[in-house]
Amino acid sequence: MLKENERIDKVPGTDYEIIQNSNKFSYGTDAIFLSEFARGKGKIVELGTGTGIIPIRVMGRKNPEKIYAIEIQEEMANMAKRSVKLNKLEEKIQVLNLDFREIESKFPKASIDEVISNPPYIKKGSGIKNKSDTFTISRHEVHGDIEDLIKAAEYLLKPKGRLFLVHRPDRLVDIFYYMRKYKIEPKTIKFVRPSKDKVPNLVLIEGIKFAKAELRILEDLIVYSNGEYTEEIGEIYYG
Amino acid sequence: MLKENERIDKVPGTDYEIIQNSNKFSYGTDAIFLSEFARGKGKIVELGTGTGIIPIRVMGRKNPEKIYAIEIQEEMANMAKRSVKLNKLEEKIQVLNLDFREIESKFPKASIDEVISNPPYIKKGSGIKNKSDTFTISRHEVHGDIEDLIKAAEYLLKPKGRLFLVHRPDRLVDIFYYMRKYKIEPKTIKFVRPSKDKVPNLVLIEGIKFAKAELRILEDLIVYSNGEYTEEIGEIYYG
Repeated sequence: MLKENERIDKVPGTDYEIIQNSNKFSYGTDAIFLSEFARGKGKIVELGTGTGIIPIRVMGRKNPEKIYAIEIQEEMANMAKRSVKLNKLEEKIQVLNLDFREIESKFPKASIDEVISNPPYIKKGSGIKNKSDTFTISRHEVHGDIEDLIKAAEYLLKPKGRLFLVHRPDRLVDIFYYMRKYKIEPKTIKFVRPSKDKVPNLVLIEGIKFAKAELRILEDLIVYSNGEYTEEIGEIYYG
Repeated sequence: MLKENERIDKVPGTDYEIIQNSNKFSYGTDAIFLSEFARGKGKIVELGTGTGIIPIRVMGRKNPEKIYAIEIQEEMANMAKRSVKLNKLEEKIQVLNLDFREIESKFPKASIDEVISNPPYIKKGSGIKNKSDTFTISRHEVHGDIEDLIKAAEYLLKPKGRLFLVHRPDRLVDIFYYMRKYKIEPKTIKFVRPSKDKVPNLVLIEGIKFAKAELRILEDLIVYSNGEYTEEIGEIYYG
């Protein structure tokens, strides 16, 4: 089951496990927060699954009907598939090695209840040396940018279907602009701060297709307090 | 100088005074925060001045070259004019009784360094009984909406000119969307919270015409701590 440099980690807050590779991009806290923030109901598509952490964790926490996890990188998709098998989740999670810009070839329009994505944060056009390693592809908008992603979500979602994203606050204007443009109205946001006195370094966003305009700001998620995880984080990781 | 039901108040944090009328819309803390947040340099236009609190306070705190204060309501414009006179600021602040949708008749394109506005917060279309009283006009988008306002700012601003707004967080998507549409990129935002543990009830926004996309979130402005003004608020009101 395991290839060179691979190890098996526990999926926080669930009974599932996940394969990770020390030489490849590993999941971060942002993926954990997003899987907690997502609704996790009905038929779900995740765009850019990487290790597969989000579908496995959403399945462990919320048990939706089905998750289709899209991943453009063949090696990562293969590793995610093996993690799905490791947890005997083949009936519930399907990993597809696919470019999300070609989603129309695999899914009918307006057929999905929820789209989840933890996309690359860094804007295309920023200097990149190596375009093929998993770190670059997971962090930079090499294969499709935020507009492509929101367009894919618009195609997939049923009316009143929901999009859940995590991103950096410095991209919030791009996200709001394209969500509005593609009729997925941003409805709630939740900022994540490393500690109470620091500015947010992440933002969780929920949009609803064809919803009316009115944004609600939820209480911030604070990660550390006096050098230790806050209660809310403890609940996410160990609850 | 004073008409029926009018009184003279101190303008917080300055040596100036302002006329207010107990039966009309009075300025709120949002106007004070916005006047503090604005840059206050060069030639400035304020869209919808009401009592005139913002130009008078910006003048007292930052002494810009000139402020043109636009107000559609004749009575409010007249009161603001008298406040300008009361402070002997006629050379520095010009109050214009004008609909900001007709700004092109009075100002050349791209001639202004800074636009400031504390617009009505409530979206047009929400139920309104009396369309003519000063409370309704100051709170509801009766005369022009957020898109009209941002369009007027786009017309007025020089390249790299700045727009400063205060609004409710639930309108943030509208604001980002129209600012991006009219090429005034949102660059910094600052949320205002009643206290550290409450969600924001106001947001201050700075946009720059033709700037590149990258949003910075400043530290929140917290109003109360243990039932008293915080140090930052004390500095604004009495500093």
